[in-house]
Amino acid sequence: MTALFPPKEYRARLHRAQQAMAGHDLTALLLTTEPEVRYFTGFLTRFWESPTRPWFVVVPSAGDPIAVIPSIGVHLMQQSWFSDIRCWSAPDYADDGVSLLADTLRGAVPKGARIGLPSGMESHLRMPLDDWARLQAALPDRVFTGDGAILRHLRMVKSEAEIARIRTTCAIADRAFARVPEIAATGVALSEVFRRFQMLCLEEGADWVSYLAGAADQGGYADVISPASDAPLVAGDVLMLDTGAVKDGYFCDFDRNYSVGPATAEVRSAYACALEACDAGFAAARPGARAADLYHAMAQVIGDANGAGRLGHGLGMQLTEWPSLIPADQTELTPGMVLTLEPSAPLPGGRMIVHEENIVITQIGAAYLSAPAPRQIPIL
Amino acid sequence: MTALFPPKEYRARLHRAQQAMAGHDLTALLLTTEPEVRYFTGFLTRFWESPTRPWFVVVPSAGDPIAVIPSIGVHLMQQSWFSDIRCWSAPDYADDGVSLLADTLRGAVPKGARIGLPSGMESHLRMPLDDWARLQAALPDRVFTGDGAILRHLRMVKSEAEIARIRTTCAIADRAFARVPEIAATGVALSEVFRRFQMLCLEEGADWVSYLAGAADQGGYADVISPASDAPLVAGDVLMLDTGAVKDGYFCDFDRNYSVGPATAEVRSAYACALEACDAGFAAARPGARAADLYHAMAQVIGDANGAGRLGHGLGMQLTEWPSLIPADQTELTPGMVLTLEPSAPLPGGRMIVHEENIVITQIGAAYLSAPAPRQIPIL
Repeated sequence: MTALFPPKEYRARLHRAQQAMAGHDLTALLLTTEPEVRYFTGFLTRFWESPTRPWFVVVPSAGDPIAVIPSIGVHLMQQSWFSDIRCWSAPDYADDGVSLLADTLRGAVPKGARIGLPSGMESHLRMPLDDWARLQAALPDRVFTGDGAILRHLRMVKSEAEIARIRTTCAIADRAFARVPEIAATGVALSEVFRRFQMLCLEEGADWVSYLAGAADQGGYADVISPASDAPLVAGDVLMLDTGAVKDGYFCDFDRNYSVGPATAEVRSAYACALEACDAGFAAARPGARAADLYHAMAQVIGDANGAGRLGHGLGMQLTEWPSLIPADQTELTPGMVLTLEPSAPLPGGRMIVHEENIVITQIGAAYLSAPAPRQIPIL
Repeated sequence: MTALFPPKEYRARLHRAQQAMAGHDLTALLLTTEPEVRYFTGFLTRFWESPTRPWFVVVPSAGDPIAVIPSIGVHLMQQSWFSDIRCWSAPDYADDGVSLLADTLRGAVPKGARIGLPSGMESHLRMPLDDWARLQAALPDRVFTGDGAILRHLRMVKSEAEIARIRTTCAIADRAFARVPEIAATGVALSEVFRRFQMLCLEEGADWVSYLAGAADQGGYADVISPASDAPLVAGDVLMLDTGAVKDGYFCDFDRNYSVGPATAEVRSAYACALEACDAGFAAARPGARAADLYHAMAQVIGDANGAGRLGHGLGMQLTEWPSLIPADQTELTPGMVLTLEPSAPLPGGRMIVHEENIVITQIGAAYLSAPAPRQIPIL
């Protein structure tokens, strides 16, 4: 499976996790979501789209991790570096892996010891609440608690191998964006542009396109999360496409704007303002800076210093990850963090132009992973 | 937003939910996942791909439901039939909607009354565990409990409007499968076939392609959930593609098999066996039958009567839904249920051929939503 990293990558992740666990007095981590499981195993499959089956990884504070998974996943999990793979035939209405997981935790965690689960923002527990109650009842003498944000801290700093993956995905989207003039013009329905843009991403090498948002409206747009309508592009529209394509399990997340026909002075000015804000965020992005510093650098350009929304975020195995570029986020940036810069320049009537780039924090500052957008809004 | 149903569709869902709530002594339902929220609101966006923000819907036992959502979603939610939309600026590190949700529940649910959350198999709680603990602590005199499988029972029976959506999506995949000979041939990498097949689905009208699995191997395949490798197709391979394309928020989920070059007698026989099993499942599919009956009808053809795995499942707003076609599932089929029939014919060496169709239960039996596969394996 080409998407697997060499075992040393996963060993390094395990080592970092186990070091952190010692500091939090945790004897095991219990992980249930796709990115958490994949972080330690490399287990990459779109099968997570089905909610039917739960999947578990137990990371002990010493020794190798254990996968506790439905038997349908064993063949694929055996391609990973994991040697301890325990399975049950799911779905099992009498006991859907709970006893097997409880036995595994009983073996890995002494009585009285603590089992950490990701419990903070942007996390959730991907197992039924009833089974969660059963698991806790089966292990009354172990302590279930939060993971002390260990997963957050581990995943927030990417390895060189991960950064290379994200760079590859960004380059795929770069090539797709360069071809937008092939698919978007006056009279073409926005929904058709969305379909054709996803086809371009695939043609340029994406494995799949997990996210595409965007908008097209006269002189800027107000809503950036709605599905595409069938309304045709008309002269004066600003078209924005924002994609989370995936290659080998890693996302890009950036957008590009286009003017359908000549752009008004107002649109050109807002576009320039969004790019200037992004430049300011980029200039502020260096080791030692805080996530909030990037927010303020960008907000100073676009205005509305404390109420400009979220102006970027982490990126990697998920479309959005920690940290958030908001005033409250005091995360200190370190080399290896991958971020989006996503300022939006306001326009009258609730309209805006959102601009987004992907960057990586380096030893000396930041570097672009996406090829920076043209300084003037492209005309279709 | 074209993906919205008329308000009467959502009113009917609400009415059914409120009737069921009375039977379970529930004063409100609390919903957190994409399909649960969309079931009552019609709120359709790929923005759920981001794990950053939680979203909530409160369904009271009388009166209209309430959306408690991040402000970034308000514009889109306002397109829905909901009139009570409460929002906060997320992410908020001090209080990410928990107080607003607690206030909402306090207003909708008297002291001592019960709030139901989906808690059984195939469900999960999409909010951080820490916030779940905070919410419970904020409402010590309300009772949080399971939803009595209300959501499961509601969603399992589709309306005519939902069935029409699924039929449309199936027809898109039908057309894409018919064009596989354009993209798959000896020498083409499986990963390229995967990319091109997703492009065909988009070209034929899919909004996006949330799921594509498959395999290609000599005389059958062993693993159906791995990502595609870069290995080129060679004569003697059986190629299988299994897609969950999406149009207007509704999935299809079926597969097709192809022989690269002439098929061996063994492959032709296994293919015939898989289709025959599917026929048997189809013949057994009628109101009053149990999910397990369909399992046994198919297992009798392919052998291994109690250990053949899951031979199909529900389908709709998600790639896989309740029920499961397994011996333990005693769900009684009723008109409006949409199912996949997914038997796999075993071959020596752990290989198999998996065949899948989509059907709907009608008053008099079943009807195909996918156009049934050719009776002989197509040759590429």
